[in-house]
Amino acid sequence: MLVARSVAELRAARHEASGLVGLVPTMGYLHRGHISLVDAARAECGTVVASIFVNPTQFGPGEDFSRYPRNEEHDLELLEAAGVDVVLIPTVAEMYPEGDTARIHMDGLTDVLEGARRPGHFIGVATVVAKLFNIVQPDFAYFGRKDAQQLAVIQGMARDLLMPITVVGCPIVREPDGLACSSRNIYLSPEQRQQAASLSAGLRQAEAAFQDGVRDPEALRNSVRRRIEQESLAAIDYVSLSDASTLRELADPVEQPALLSLAVAFGPTHLLDNITLVP
Amino acid sequence: MLVARSVAELRAARHEASGLVGLVPTMGYLHRGHISLVDAARAECGTVVASIFVNPTQFGPGEDFSRYPRNEEHDLELLEAAGVDVVLIPTVAEMYPEGDTARIHMDGLTDVLEGARRPGHFIGVATVVAKLFNIVQPDFAYFGRKDAQQLAVIQGMARDLLMPITVVGCPIVREPDGLACSSRNIYLSPEQRQQAASLSAGLRQAEAAFQDGVRDPEALRNSVRRRIEQESLAAIDYVSLSDASTLRELADPVEQPALLSLAVAFGPTHLLDNITLVP
Repeated sequence: MLVARSVAELRAARHEASGLVGLVPTMGYLHRGHISLVDAARAECGTVVASIFVNPTQFGPGEDFSRYPRNEEHDLELLEAAGVDVVLIPTVAEMYPEGDTARIHMDGLTDVLEGARRPGHFIGVATVVAKLFNIVQPDFAYFGRKDAQQLAVIQGMARDLLMPITVVGCPIVREPDGLACSSRNIYLSPEQRQQAASLSAGLRQAEAAFQDGVRDPEALRNSVRRRIEQESLAAIDYVSLSDASTLRELADPVEQPALLSLAVAFGPTHLLDNITLVP
Repeated sequence: MLVARSVAELRAARHEASGLVGLVPTMGYLHRGHISLVDAARAECGTVVASIFVNPTQFGPGEDFSRYPRNEEHDLELLEAAGVDVVLIPTVAEMYPEGDTARIHMDGLTDVLEGARRPGHFIGVATVVAKLFNIVQPDFAYFGRKDAQQLAVIQGMARDLLMPITVVGCPIVREPDGLACSSRNIYLSPEQRQQAASLSAGLRQAEAAFQDGVRDPEALRNSVRRRIEQESLAAIDYVSLSDASTLRELADPVEQPALLSLAVAFGPTHLLDNITLVP
């Protein structure tokens, strides 16, 4: 496994790559969810590139950029064991060169849900992913569905900018009690960690209602809320039922695939989860 | 010469291309300036792609999108004679797919000079060029220096987004009396056309003063203004002396390469010209 710490090293390795190239962009501190993305890439591509870059422009003032968890040595062990061919670990100076001003905006997709809670977040995400795409020039790129809005933004960007890249959304990987794997889960106290299982439990409860024929958006959102509100330490940021591709909040009964998504805070830690409801 | 009217056709042709690929993006209605870009591409690249696309998103409300001059048949003759291998003429529907929202912003570079006069113009330019780059995946792309700010925006975008593309700025091609070639020159009445030679004359006058040691920015701008103000039909939009890469207006004596640029209206027609002053 080659570790490229500069764009030039990565490009040289890319030049030697055989077959289709798959990219798994990450911010490091890897868990089973990330490794499932590597597995998906390995299944489709002759060469698998993973990147580790904690992207400053997607963190707002007062967010957890500086304390975002990092463990490069362990990440490299996991990626090597998973069969990654090349790891890109670029510097901030090379990713954001002097005079840098280019930012990719996607109005509508980026200013709702997580984007409303974190202004500018998805502009930073879209921009850094475009940079990674231009460095690696992959045929396929893999993202987890846990960050559903991130996936919608990146798929929308690739479509709108006519990028020659297929953006693949991969299933959420969960802990045995249903909690979606996330690098931020380590921030949870034991009691918070236990209560955090209510997120997926709430989504499953709404999904069961949906399968029983409930189509009213507010009834489905309330089903999720009621379950989470049973937990003393959980503060709901939002529970959303939106069109799965435009992310527009639904007012009318569900007739198209819909994204049921939520963000819930346990103290300073915000957790995300979602399911897609298909009529 | 192949004419590709869809992204798929272009990509198939791109796949067969040999050697380096050069792209000359145009809005059509070609003149000698465009052909000089093709010549530059031919000199460096094994395959030359030209595109013709009048990009709606770079025209503001009330600007000349619908009346922008078009002559595809003649353009194709000129491109074939110049030795172009592939011409891309995409549709608006394919360039701006349903749900399209992605826009590339470059604050600072895009909101001064022409960007101040035409809000959103360079967002549209950067976005469409990124799309063309993603379709064609050229090694080199060629732009005229007449649109100096456009060149700075696209060079900045390629640098910031780490695009694997060299953006080449080519010399301004002029008429015998000094007027910079432009598709919009046909809008000029005979009298306006005659007076339009004052733009390059004003720039040359300031350049002569610069060579005589004048370094004060306002003195250099005034030298240009004085010459153009002799013409009864010319209305100056701006005369600017700015840092050549950041486009920040200069207040202090010129010590670095500086861009002396102007926009002048003759009736509804706005003409651009510029020179670079190198101490």
